[in-house]
Amino acid sequence: MGIDPGTTIMGYGIIRVTGQTAKMVVLGVLALHKYDDHYVKLRHIFERVTQLIDEYRPVELAIEAPFYGKNVQSMLKLGRAQGAAIAAALARQIPITEYAPRKIKLAITGQGAASKEQVAKILQKLLKIEKLPAELDATDGLAVAICHFFQSARPSSEKAYKSWNDFIGKNPSRVRK
Amino acid sequence: MGIDPGTTIMGYGIIRVTGQTAKMVVLGVLALHKYDDHYVKLRHIFERVTQLIDEYRPVELAIEAPFYGKNVQSMLKLGRAQGAAIAAALARQIPITEYAPRKIKLAITGQGAASKEQVAKILQKLLKIEKLPAELDATDGLAVAICHFFQSARPSSEKAYKSWNDFIGKNPSRVRK
Repeated sequence: MGIDPGTTIMGYGIIRVTGQTAKMVVLGVLALHKYDDHYVKLRHIFERVTQLIDEYRPVELAIEAPFYGKNVQSMLKLGRAQGAAIAAALARQIPITEYAPRKIKLAITGQGAASKEQVAKILQKLLKIEKLPAELDATDGLAVAICHFFQSARPSSEKAYKSWNDFIGKNPSRVRK
Repeated sequence: MGIDPGTTIMGYGIIRVTGQTAKMVVLGVLALHKYDDHYVKLRHIFERVTQLIDEYRPVELAIEAPFYGKNVQSMLKLGRAQGAAIAAALARQIPITEYAPRKIKLAITGQGAASKEQVAKILQKLLKIEKLPAELDATDGLAVAICHFFQSARPSSEKAYKSWNDFIGKNPSRVRK
């Protein structure tokens, strides 16, 4: 499962990986700009991520996480949005991997500065999606899921885990006693 | 319930309010500096807040929330810690009020630039605490709980709610449908 948690929109995508092949299960957005209240946004993020986890039972979560922002105020808000999404995954014992936006674009298109349209086009071809949603933000979550799939499929990647058991073996501290 | 969520330590305090009187129920700290893994910290914050809510059933949460920081990196991390704590409260439908550190010190000591020792001393006297814990961070959570109690007791405060029903009445959007 991949998500791109933001303060105005959260994109999510879930893929099913069989061997070296990924298939799209679902993609969508959670529109947050319609809510004025900051807490309502955070509650929606937490609840939607929890709901998606409970419905689709993903074994790993990849999130798009920018580490630089315009100012401390916006970073605090972004951090809270990320924290709410991360907490939902941690509450369900799901391992998390983060990718910077540039890294995601690079993994999918070969170019760190690729446009949303370029990323969407490649995802559409790769996953044989007939029609993409009008809102391109919807593909942001899918993009980070595919990026994680690519990273995990390459044994050279430091942050990749082959399976849940592999993850537990390498991260005993993350297992609830 | 008051908490001061940080990335190295989280202080918490719970008070019981009867009429115009507050009594301390519990205060403590969650030491986070012993964990290297950022996710483990977030999971502990989320789990401890959830656990405290389930055990003590607070009706409101007040958090100490600095809005300015040294740099965007530290603000992102702080935002995540806050987000994990806030998500735990939102998941249990508990209304949240935030206070800046200066506001808390001002409410308790009358001075926005008061030291931790000054705040602790007044809390000790006010709540008739026999012996304070060695770690003064433990009183940070208690301080924000008392600050919120003072604010709520003063009808002039904009952000204060007299009761859960009062809160719901004034914030219909925060009620799950």
